[in-house]
Amino acid sequence: MTEKTQGVRRRGRRPGGTDTREALLNAAREVFIEQGFDGATVRAIASRAGVDAAMVNHWFGGKEGLFGEAVLKLPFNPQDILSDLLTADAEHIGDAIVRRFVTTWDTTGGGVFTALMRSVASHEEAAMMLRDFFFKHIFKHVIGRLAPDNHELRATLVATQIVGMGMIRYVAKFEPFASADVDIVSAAVAPTLQRYITGKID
Amino acid sequence: MTEKTQGVRRRGRRPGGTDTREALLNAAREVFIEQGFDGATVRAIASRAGVDAAMVNHWFGGKEGLFGEAVLKLPFNPQDILSDLLTADAEHIGDAIVRRFVTTWDTTGGGVFTALMRSVASHEEAAMMLRDFFFKHIFKHVIGRLAPDNHELRATLVATQIVGMGMIRYVAKFEPFASADVDIVSAAVAPTLQRYITGKID
Repeated sequence: MTEKTQGVRRRGRRPGGTDTREALLNAAREVFIEQGFDGATVRAIASRAGVDAAMVNHWFGGKEGLFGEAVLKLPFNPQDILSDLLTADAEHIGDAIVRRFVTTWDTTGGGVFTALMRSVASHEEAAMMLRDFFFKHIFKHVIGRLAPDNHELRATLVATQIVGMGMIRYVAKFEPFASADVDIVSAAVAPTLQRYITGKID
Repeated sequence: MTEKTQGVRRRGRRPGGTDTREALLNAAREVFIEQGFDGATVRAIASRAGVDAAMVNHWFGGKEGLFGEAVLKLPFNPQDILSDLLTADAEHIGDAIVRRFVTTWDTTGGGVFTALMRSVASHEEAAMMLRDFFFKHIFKHVIGRLAPDNHELRATLVATQIVGMGMIRYVAKFEPFASADVDIVSAAVAPTLQRYITGKID
């Protein structure tokens, strides 16, 4: 993260003195809000930012990463999460999800999760983009690989437990859950996610 | 509900023309924010509203009901929920909770849940009051009666799944969960709450 941030400062200046990376983030926020995730193209975002489209791959690894950082303000690249979850054993997917989300959000003290939820509670578009993103770019792949049926319902059930964990841990801060070690959280919550993905839900 | 509302109109006028019930709600919002749930007294609220303290019992059945309506904007009296949950069989408590919450929030189209979450995400005090209220006036009793150990952790786990259900169903509106029949929701989610209250969590 530090290295990347330094990289921004060192290499990210356009001739005009504006930071390429910042320009892309600002353009992306506008274009994603206007067009939605699917409608927004890398070309349109780069064009609005006045930079070459190759810069999107260079700085964000693609449209997903740019969306995650610009709109969802995720402190990580969603592609990394997906890679983790796609390589987890079927019987440990619940544990993998809990640990990945909790350790990632804990790293930022929950501030980005709170900002994301505030945005979702206030803007219909943010909720739609989060849903599309969550489904199409993370859980469709994970659930498609592991779940026996009802993929979409299972994905939304997973979302209820993940969003609920975040709300209680970072936003409402209910103790002892808010400060519980990730091992305790996973022991309690992983079986829920495991059942929502691979178990009986009806 | 209709009868009660009519009651307000028919009987709730103070001599000065102000509605007693409205005056209590406004005073309660102020006093709860200033003093918290425990610190706020019925006497102080009634005094601020300029009415007799007996009016709190008359209109709201006590401090909990007034808090629920004034601050949490619950479309029901929390004492009624508690009564329901306290009489549910131990092995059906998960189902009872899911059905009670979903049918209650569905009745209002989820608007009050969204308002509550927006308030919790924006005001530290609202989160604290919600937590105190949730624990001391609903789940302490339910979980104290049924859970074998770790009462507080279990209560917060229950909160993660209830709040998450509300967020996905009413705020983010992820389909198919957002429109799923309460029977489908309960079949999927009740076992989670059942385990958080009476099952193995470590």
